[in-house]
Amino acid sequence: MRIALLQAEAAPLDPARNLAAIGEAASAARSAGAELLLAPELFVTGYAPRELADWLTPERIAPFPAELAALASRAGIAIAAGFPSARGDRTFAISAGLWDATGAELLRYEKVHLWGAEERLAFTPSEAAPSVVDWNGRRVAFQICYDIEFPEPARRIAELGADLLLVPTAIDGESAYVPDILVRARAAENGMVVAYADHARAADAPSDPAAGFAGLSTVAGLEGALLARAGAGPELLIADLPDVSARPAAGADYLRDRRPEVYAGWR
Amino acid sequence: MRIALLQAEAAPLDPARNLAAIGEAASAARSAGAELLLAPELFVTGYAPRELADWLTPERIAPFPAELAALASRAGIAIAAGFPSARGDRTFAISAGLWDATGAELLRYEKVHLWGAEERLAFTPSEAAPSVVDWNGRRVAFQICYDIEFPEPARRIAELGADLLLVPTAIDGESAYVPDILVRARAAENGMVVAYADHARAADAPSDPAAGFAGLSTVAGLEGALLARAGAGPELLIADLPDVSARPAAGADYLRDRRPEVYAGWR
Repeated sequence: MRIALLQAEAAPLDPARNLAAIGEAASAARSAGAELLLAPELFVTGYAPRELADWLTPERIAPFPAELAALASRAGIAIAAGFPSARGDRTFAISAGLWDATGAELLRYEKVHLWGAEERLAFTPSEAAPSVVDWNGRRVAFQICYDIEFPEPARRIAELGADLLLVPTAIDGESAYVPDILVRARAAENGMVVAYADHARAADAPSDPAAGFAGLSTVAGLEGALLARAGAGPELLIADLPDVSARPAAGADYLRDRRPEVYAGWR
Repeated sequence: MRIALLQAEAAPLDPARNLAAIGEAASAARSAGAELLLAPELFVTGYAPRELADWLTPERIAPFPAELAALASRAGIAIAAGFPSARGDRTFAISAGLWDATGAELLRYEKVHLWGAEERLAFTPSEAAPSVVDWNGRRVAFQICYDIEFPEPARRIAELGADLLLVPTAIDGESAYVPDILVRARAAENGMVVAYADHARAADAPSDPAAGFAGLSTVAGLEGALLARAGAGPELLIADLPDVSARPAAGADYLRDRRPEVYAGWR
């Protein structure tokens, strides 16, 4: 299976432009033989939590899922993307959704671990359990950005049988250790593919790495192998995933060999 | 704080020779300004589970702790090392112990996750909770080899306040992803130093990486930073550890930000 990750600059508070960029990337990914396009965290509005705190209204963001569904069916490719969503209580979530190539929504996820004070200006964290869905012969789940840096949720998702974890993200240039180490560790220790899609670093970003995105979108597989890795700038990153059954018989099987009943006795 | 890792070839079933090697390395480490020498898994007997299955007797291995204590007090440096130990029921454990520079035993640990079928010929796994001990201003704990590849035990050890995790290991040349990714991930996600000491690859090891040890002893710190890294061959690896208080205020604090009560609700 081939997938594509959109590493690009989103235009803050300009969803029409960002949705158009997703649509163009979806067509390009489809032409390249990919079955899925994954876009970064909050790509539809741009990752700009401070500005979003004043901009978000339930009405303004309500159309995003239908627009993403339309882009998927139009391009004939599954789309997974990050966007803000409103809850019934008028709080907002950092969300991700998966639409198949017919535009049917298969999966929705809300971020559990918010990062820093700025995200809390606009969003509240979810406490809902992550779900796993069947898609094109894979078992697929989401994490968003800071979520994947914790081992516990990805482990729970692996217990539910996921073999492809999609992670829209937004990290700064000082956080390269996350794709370099933690994303690859989640793939290795859970025997799954982790696809981690970040925003592109702007060509005019300051020299301070903390100012601006990292890029460095990564797809990691068994034993943390790098299946694909982007640089800092804009890129449609293509990754060919090994078959789900490709686990080598001699390798470690962490889901089989871990001892949860023993760990529970340590408390 | 400076520590040293002994990456060397142990002589199978020749504890006198291996203990002498630990003693020599302890003196060299002390001369280099280190406060601790860490030796690999089962270094005292050699990592040879198949041969140990016929060789081990409680009487034969009973002296090892006292001999390691004597080496520590003689060299005036703490020693942490891997060795086989016998239980009251005449089963055997893959153990590690820590002796301070006066020879006092501070900590003992038995491996919880055995690797493959060969280790089970000689050993049975422990179910005991890992402990954390105060030593020279640090909070220290053990894992052994396969243990560290699972996120759960290291997380529990971090909850107990450990900041220095000592890991005697024995990995083959196909397992480089463990020090490259998983050891660094444990350090990053738990905000601790992980010191991972492997056997040296023999100069006459076969070209097949799976036949023979990897070497690649590693000391990893915050954000998975490589504090020290060995090659494949024999080496006394020196690492200078940052102060326990050196965590950058702007960095991620995974122990603070994780949500165990939320994860518990997912079951």
